[in-house]
Amino acid sequence: MSENIRIAVDAMGGDHAPDVVLEGVAQALAADAGLTVILCGPARVVEPFAAAHERCEARVTTEVIGMGEHPAEAVRKKKDSSIVAGCRLVKEGAAQGFFSAGSTGACLAAGTLVMGRIKGVARPALATVIPSPVRPVVMCDVGANADCKPAYLVQFAQMASIYAEKVVGIHSPRAALLNIGEEDTKGSQFAQEAHALLKEQLPNFAGNAEGGDILAATYDVIVTDGFTGNVCLKTIEGTSKTLFKTLKGIMLKTPLTKLGALTIKGGLKQLMAQVSPDTYGGAPLLGVKGALLVGHGSSNAFAIKNGVLTTAGIVRAEVSEIIAQTVAAGASSATMD
Amino acid sequence: MSENIRIAVDAMGGDHAPDVVLEGVAQALAADAGLTVILCGPARVVEPFAAAHERCEARVTTEVIGMGEHPAEAVRKKKDSSIVAGCRLVKEGAAQGFFSAGSTGACLAAGTLVMGRIKGVARPALATVIPSPVRPVVMCDVGANADCKPAYLVQFAQMASIYAEKVVGIHSPRAALLNIGEEDTKGSQFAQEAHALLKEQLPNFAGNAEGGDILAATYDVIVTDGFTGNVCLKTIEGTSKTLFKTLKGIMLKTPLTKLGALTIKGGLKQLMAQVSPDTYGGAPLLGVKGALLVGHGSSNAFAIKNGVLTTAGIVRAEVSEIIAQTVAAGASSATMD
Repeated sequence: MSENIRIAVDAMGGDHAPDVVLEGVAQALAADAGLTVILCGPARVVEPFAAAHERCEARVTTEVIGMGEHPAEAVRKKKDSSIVAGCRLVKEGAAQGFFSAGSTGACLAAGTLVMGRIKGVARPALATVIPSPVRPVVMCDVGANADCKPAYLVQFAQMASIYAEKVVGIHSPRAALLNIGEEDTKGSQFAQEAHALLKEQLPNFAGNAEGGDILAATYDVIVTDGFTGNVCLKTIEGTSKTLFKTLKGIMLKTPLTKLGALTIKGGLKQLMAQVSPDTYGGAPLLGVKGALLVGHGSSNAFAIKNGVLTTAGIVRAEVSEIIAQTVAAGASSATMD
Repeated sequence: MSENIRIAVDAMGGDHAPDVVLEGVAQALAADAGLTVILCGPARVVEPFAAAHERCEARVTTEVIGMGEHPAEAVRKKKDSSIVAGCRLVKEGAAQGFFSAGSTGACLAAGTLVMGRIKGVARPALATVIPSPVRPVVMCDVGANADCKPAYLVQFAQMASIYAEKVVGIHSPRAALLNIGEEDTKGSQFAQEAHALLKEQLPNFAGNAEGGDILAATYDVIVTDGFTGNVCLKTIEGTSKTLFKTLKGIMLKTPLTKLGALTIKGGLKQLMAQVSPDTYGGAPLLGVKGALLVGHGSSNAFAIKNGVLTTAGIVRAEVSEIIAQTVAAGASSATMD
């Protein structure tokens, strides 16, 4: 932890920016003595904070990319936005990673356009830790590429396996393809082709997974196209949310149920924390040069803190470097583009 | 309920056949005085049962399609299996519907090949009621068509809306496309094309839904391709299962939590019943001539009973007839094939 890591942070990202971002950054700085944060945002926000905190520098920006803007267009036009400025700091070597809880689309576009793809990576992909009560599971792609070729999934699996092992701490992760049946020949044309390629090229490939295997943590890494992955991730989050909400209603129904609920409150709180996406604070865009982590728009200070620390963890684990080596050692990327 | 309906039932379908099937059929016969069941299966199973029950006839079959067999191949070869025989009874008019908790693939193949598609329907599709604690939601396709053309989804939405209104009892159902963003332009190429067609051709189209909207019941009907739909359905079922299992562990941890859990036991039981797929007992294959309902392999007698009654409900509601009229009135199916 002593090695000094420089992480750029978007002060204006998320529904509760800049307050919760500043609070989260302060907590991250306190937790990691080897961390320096370069805070990107308007002068009135970033300068006083940087002046008041050690190991924090200000990078003043004048533009903001809103949640409703067209991502790639906004990134091209708003060169002095906090998202583009943060990615440029990484590109120029002034920082090694960037964290933002702002527009996911703009972060993905800026990551690819400004930081740039690792040589040989066909498509950078968004990975996320699915917070299972059993144990963490990494899913990739969860939304960077709505349209994929089967060959992309081999790299998604390679990159996600590296993230799972080096950052999440899963020893020898087993990767599975999200599909609609266990047998090799099941699924859409796309899934069948992806299965054949994964079986041929991925040493840690374990076969097909079904929807029920995700939260059950039957496998460590779940690989899929960005459309299915995003739908699935939001389905898991939404299902948990609806069930917890209904459970709360049951527990608050009468004085007696309220009393009874007190006995399991501690266990429930622990479960809620386990299935909360805040533990890792965001989803990394894998395959770009440098570390890029995208936080939930609804991030609280705890999530921001964890997001900044996870970004530093990706840098320390040399995830980008290992991805570059793995891709270079792998099959020709000619089939990828 | 007085109108006499004849439903063929696969005595050999499901993990616990024939015992739970017979028990479920007996319950269905007792619950619906207008129901006659034609029980398909080996003589030793169906003949004694039919002899012992009013309004039950035996259709002796000599072959069984196993869960591991290739569906279309098995349907072509095993003409005297309970699944093929049941579908043929509908084809020949001896029954108006067929219920099986056997191999889903074989049921879908037999439904399409033996019962036949309704004229103008490009692809029959599997619909299911997502058991939300908020209110029931119909999702379609949940697995009949792993590969789809965007135009199919318009018919899936039409057919699922008819099922939602006539059988599930949802007044004026609002249908949404499962996608990865709310805006019209979001999603894969496929989803964007499907969105445009739905907007143009479906009067009750309400826009894009995301994964979190399914169990939250933001919309009444969720339309998607059979790959995404199947992954999503299994993700919802698996997420609920994992969370309930974890919750059970929390409640049984200590004598105190066990005592506290007693107070919410009733409410939890009610919730479990609400989110159980057993209430409707199965998923209808919409777009075939006649009613076909496919039950869970793990069906208990309660699920079988409800499956048989739902099949009768589909017949009484004239779902196939309304689908035929709607498709005939709709746009030319030339773009569908």
